[in-house]
Amino acid sequence: MRFGFAAKGAGMIAPNMATMLCFVTCAAAVSARAWQTMMAAALEASFNRITVDGQESTNDMVLGIANGAAGIRLADSDLERLSETLEAGMLAMALAVVADGEGATTTVRLQIQGACDRAEAQRVARAIADSTLVKTAIYGHDANWGRIVQSAGMVLGADCLGPLLCDLALAGLKVADDCAPVRLDEADESYLRQAMDAPELELSVDLHRGRASSVVYFSELTHDYVRLNAGART
Amino acid sequence: MRFGFAAKGAGMIAPNMATMLCFVTCAAAVSARAWQTMMAAALEASFNRITVDGQESTNDMVLGIANGAAGIRLADSDLERLSETLEAGMLAMALAVVADGEGATTTVRLQIQGACDRAEAQRVARAIADSTLVKTAIYGHDANWGRIVQSAGMVLGADCLGPLLCDLALAGLKVADDCAPVRLDEADESYLRQAMDAPELELSVDLHRGRASSVVYFSELTHDYVRLNAGART
Repeated sequence: MRFGFAAKGAGMIAPNMATMLCFVTCAAAVSARAWQTMMAAALEASFNRITVDGQESTNDMVLGIANGAAGIRLADSDLERLSETLEAGMLAMALAVVADGEGATTTVRLQIQGACDRAEAQRVARAIADSTLVKTAIYGHDANWGRIVQSAGMVLGADCLGPLLCDLALAGLKVADDCAPVRLDEADESYLRQAMDAPELELSVDLHRGRASSVVYFSELTHDYVRLNAGART
Repeated sequence: MRFGFAAKGAGMIAPNMATMLCFVTCAAAVSARAWQTMMAAALEASFNRITVDGQESTNDMVLGIANGAAGIRLADSDLERLSETLEAGMLAMALAVVADGEGATTTVRLQIQGACDRAEAQRVARAIADSTLVKTAIYGHDANWGRIVQSAGMVLGADCLGPLLCDLALAGLKVADDCAPVRLDEADESYLRQAMDAPELELSVDLHRGRASSVVYFSELTHDYVRLNAGART
């Protein structure tokens, strides 16, 4: 089935606010209700999971059309595959927006696990992803897990009885266990350095509070972000 | 009456988190209850009204002692003046912390007026003060009120029925009226440039929604902030 995805964003447009636009076309014949459900699910898993600087635009937009031009009647069993393809395409667009974010050099996939519920997982994920201290540490290629725990603790606040004892892993390598540093050998350190130099980084945090999880994708805070946004005169 | 104020903060301490400490001494004989009330009021008007990067430390602390060493018995009518002096001293410390914030060159006093209630005024103030877009605009000496309105709109969200029609003033000069730009003449522009070059800037936003107000003091997001926080290795 033919799909079309086009997106722009993470740039500056008059009147000086980031504007995210995404257009999705699909040649399948799908009922409006099924298409709306698919679009909402794909949106939730893609554009609603990214952040460049935590600043919601005044005019973000995702439009999708499925016009039936393919002339193929889809069985109900095809809808799941169609939905998966839609989600994969929209996620690819969303990640391109992050990677193209102002001054960004790294896209971080942050996975929060062990939260009490999904809303808590998302709040913690956003707090970490939008922390200027975490963002500058990523830019400095520094595995600074103290700043990650601080952001999580800040958002959990008084909900978090007793010390927050979470595990952290960078690129699959555990660096903190119950908030105590894991002893890394020479090979681990070398692996970590390489992982932090890559354009994509996997970061996972297990809060050990429950069974809920969430994901967010974000970029760092760089000199170019400051240059672009301090330099753009109105 | 002799007071002592000492504070440190806005710097990096192992384990790499900002730590704010403030110690207040006072030679007056004040009951514990009156002193606690004064300290709480002064704290709310000073340290709880500042932000450098929106990242709460794990170990901020303000301690105050009034030990009666002056040997003077205070009348109840003296307590108000004592309380005012305490608040002024703590505000001076809090502003020094902001001015000394990582890479900061400007301290902005942001006044939110016309909010529905105090909590709303504070949420809007924090959203503007912690917006990386607003902070970089201040650093760029750019009177970018679009970014200020965007931050306010983001936090008000669906509470804000219809367009947000607020007034904005920089250093007492109105630059937006019901969210429409005010036409500035040559003298106004010159005044604005000078005001934005100063180390302290007054910014006020009237939301036209109610009668509540709040104040927050913040610093900008500069190249030095990125350099300091991307360069500090753990």
